[in-house]
Amino acid sequence: MSMGKKSPLAPIDFPEIPEIPGVKIATEACGIKDKGRKDLMLAEFEKGTRAVGVFTKSKTAAASVNWCRRRSEIGRARALIVNSGNANAFTGIAGERSLHRTLEKVSSTLSVPKSQVFMASTGVIGERLPEQKIIKNLGRLKKNLAPRKWKAAAAAISTTDTFPKGAYRRTLIGNTPVTIGGIAKGSGMIAPDMATMLSFIFTDAKIPPFVLRTIMRRATERSFNAITVDGDTSTSDMVVLFSTGIANHLRIDSPGASALRNFRNALEEVMIDLAHQVVRDGEGASKFVTVEVVGAESAKAAKRVGFAIANSPLVKTAVAGEDPNWGRIVMAIGKSGENVNRDRLQIRIGDTPVAKNGAVVPGYDEAPVAKYMKSQEIDIHVDLCIGRGTAIVWTCDLTHDYISINADYRS
Amino acid sequence: MSMGKKSPLAPIDFPEIPEIPGVKIATEACGIKDKGRKDLMLAEFEKGTRAVGVFTKSKTAAASVNWCRRRSEIGRARALIVNSGNANAFTGIAGERSLHRTLEKVSSTLSVPKSQVFMASTGVIGERLPEQKIIKNLGRLKKNLAPRKWKAAAAAISTTDTFPKGAYRRTLIGNTPVTIGGIAKGSGMIAPDMATMLSFIFTDAKIPPFVLRTIMRRATERSFNAITVDGDTSTSDMVVLFSTGIANHLRIDSPGASALRNFRNALEEVMIDLAHQVVRDGEGASKFVTVEVVGAESAKAAKRVGFAIANSPLVKTAVAGEDPNWGRIVMAIGKSGENVNRDRLQIRIGDTPVAKNGAVVPGYDEAPVAKYMKSQEIDIHVDLCIGRGTAIVWTCDLTHDYISINADYRS
Repeated sequence: MSMGKKSPLAPIDFPEIPEIPGVKIATEACGIKDKGRKDLMLAEFEKGTRAVGVFTKSKTAAASVNWCRRRSEIGRARALIVNSGNANAFTGIAGERSLHRTLEKVSSTLSVPKSQVFMASTGVIGERLPEQKIIKNLGRLKKNLAPRKWKAAAAAISTTDTFPKGAYRRTLIGNTPVTIGGIAKGSGMIAPDMATMLSFIFTDAKIPPFVLRTIMRRATERSFNAITVDGDTSTSDMVVLFSTGIANHLRIDSPGASALRNFRNALEEVMIDLAHQVVRDGEGASKFVTVEVVGAESAKAAKRVGFAIANSPLVKTAVAGEDPNWGRIVMAIGKSGENVNRDRLQIRIGDTPVAKNGAVVPGYDEAPVAKYMKSQEIDIHVDLCIGRGTAIVWTCDLTHDYISINADYRS
Repeated sequence: MSMGKKSPLAPIDFPEIPEIPGVKIATEACGIKDKGRKDLMLAEFEKGTRAVGVFTKSKTAAASVNWCRRRSEIGRARALIVNSGNANAFTGIAGERSLHRTLEKVSSTLSVPKSQVFMASTGVIGERLPEQKIIKNLGRLKKNLAPRKWKAAAAAISTTDTFPKGAYRRTLIGNTPVTIGGIAKGSGMIAPDMATMLSFIFTDAKIPPFVLRTIMRRATERSFNAITVDGDTSTSDMVVLFSTGIANHLRIDSPGASALRNFRNALEEVMIDLAHQVVRDGEGASKFVTVEVVGAESAKAAKRVGFAIANSPLVKTAVAGEDPNWGRIVMAIGKSGENVNRDRLQIRIGDTPVAKNGAVVPGYDEAPVAKYMKSQEIDIHVDLCIGRGTAIVWTCDLTHDYISINADYRS
C-alpha cells in the first residue's frame, strides 16, 4: 500500500490545475496509512455549492457510499472528507457509527450542516475505521484550508496508485470563463459500469443539480464506465462533481442548453483524462490498450463486446507478451454473447487488418503487427458487421506485476 | 504448447479405465503439434451407438462445433476424429472445407456414414488446418484401433495440459453392470456455462438420445459448467457422450427411470472428476478452490455469486498469495449484482467463520486462517442469508505462471 515504482504509462507531470473559486483544500497524515503518508483530505465549499454523484452498484457498498448517494439526491454540499488506507466497508453497525461521528465533527468544525458533508473512505475492506485519528486532525485541517492544493489532495486519497491523478480544462459558459478541475484515485478493483474508483471534480460553474446529474451521467458512461483494469468492482467507488456557483454566467436551466455545449465537452474531457490516468496506473500495467468496436447491434452491444475483449485475461496476457495473437480477440468477441457476423467479422490491430470476412486476411504478414505490439499504446479495432452501434473502451495489459502487487497487498 | 512441468495439483496416476465394449481407439503423431507428439485420435463405435453433446455458446464457434451440434441432434455416431494443435476456428470457408474433407475420408476409411462422424479440433485459433496431415494417417489409425487406449487418447487431445485427464465408474442399470469412461483436455480458456473444453465420455449402456440428452445436461450443469480457470471461453468446446448400447440391460425410456439412478450418479461423478482435473491443470494453478454459496435467492443466483468470487482476479491472487483477504470475497459478492443481506452475510474460510452479520466476527483471529491458506485445497463458504438457493463452483488461483504461460503461448 505504498506508492510503488511509478507506472511506465504515467504522465510526465501532475497538471497545473488552477484555483477553482469556492473550493479550499487541506491534507494531513493521520496515521491510517503507513506512517507519515498523507491519508486525509478535507475540502470546504462556498455556500450554495451543488453536488451530484455516480456511485458503485456493488450490493456490499460501504456506509459512506450509501450516505453520499442520498446526499447527492438533494444535491447540496459544503464539505468533503476523504480518508485512504481503510475503506470502512463491511464493518456493520460500527462502520455506520464511525461515519456519523466523523460527519458530525466535520459539521461542527466547519459550522456547516451535517447533511451537506460528503465522506469517502478507500483502502482495506472489513477493518474498523479508527475515526478518532480523523477527528483529531480536523482542527489542523481547517486551519490549513487553501486553494490549489490539488496535487496534495490527489496523493492523500491514493492507495496502490503509483502517481497522483489530476486534470483540468478551462471553458466558457456564454462568455464567462469557468474552470473544471478533478482528481482521482484507483488502480485495482477497476471495472466497468460502477463509477469505478474515487474521483472528485470541482467547478465554479453555477448549474442546478438536475442539469448536473444529466450531463454527469452521460460523461461517466464515456469515461469511468468505459475503463477496466481487472473487472473487479470496489465497494467504495464514487465520482462526485461539486459546482460552487461562484462564476457569474447566464442562467442554465436545461442539460441541453446550447450555452452548455463547451462545458459538457470540457467536463467529458476532464473525466476521460482522469479515467485514462486510472488505466495508466492499472496494477502492473505496461501497455495502454484502446478497444474500438463498430458495426454492433447497438451502442450497448458494442460496449459489451469491447469489455469482453478488454477483460479477457488471455487477450491481456497476449498484449503483455507483445504477441499479435488475434485468435484470442475472436474468442473474446464470441464469448460476449452479442450478435456478430462470424463470416464478415473484421479485426484491425493498429492500422493493419488482420482478419476480414471471418478469416485471416489473404497473404497476412505478421511481422509488422508483431513490431506494432511492442508499442506502449495498442489499438484494437473490431467491426462486427451487424449494425451501427459503436463504443470505445480502455484497459491495460495483465502482467507479472499485477500478480506480485495483489498476491501480497496486505502483507 | 508442450506438456510443461506437471501441475502440483495433478492426480498421482492416470486411472485404469477398463474396456468399454463397442469403443476402439487409435492415436498418432501427424505433425500438427510439435514434432513427435501425438496429436490425432480416432475412435470407432459399434453400430447403433448413440451420441449427444453440449457445445460452446461462443458466437464465433469453430466449424467442427457447429457440425457436431447438428449431428448431436440426430444422435447417431460411428466415429470420432480429434486433432490437437490447430482449432480450425475462424478459418472461414477454407476451414469448412478442411472439416468436410476430413469427415469424408474418415467415412470412407471406416465405411461408416459421414453423417455419423464427429470431429473436434483444438489448439491455435485462426490458422488453416492442414487436413492432409490427418487424412494421410487415417489408414494407419484404422489398423491400430484397439480397446483401452485411454491414456494415449487423453494425451493426443491435449494442448497446454500438463497431465492427461481420465476418469471412470462402474455402475448398474437394473442388475446389469455398465461402465462409463471419459477423457478430457483443457487448462486455459476455461469458463462457465459453455461446455468448457473437450471431453469425450463413453459407455456401453443402451440409452436413447432423448434420455441421454436430459441426464447429460443436468450433469454438465454440476460439472463442466461449474468450473472456471480464467473466465475465457473457447471457440471449440464440447462434451460428447457416446453410448454404444452393447450392455444387455433392461429398456430405458425416461430420464427419470429409477433403474437409471445409479447411472445418473455415476455419470455425474465421472464428469465432476474430469472437470476437477481440468481445474487442477488450470494454467499456473497452485491451489484448488471450492466455492460454496448457500442462502441465495435461487440456485442460479448462487452460481452467479460463486462465479463472481471464482472469477475475481483479486480473490484468485489473494489465494495465490496465501492471504486470508476476505474483504475481496465481500467485494466479489457485491459485484455479482445478486441480492444479498449485507448486514447478515456470513463467510467461512475452511472451517473458520471470518464474517458474520455483515462484519468481521467478534474477536477474529487471523492466525488459523492464515495457516489454512497455505493448504493446497481451499474452501470458501458464503451464506447470503436471503433464500435457499445453493451452488458449488470450482476454480484455481491466479499465479505468475498463468502470465508466463499465456504471455508466450505461440512463441
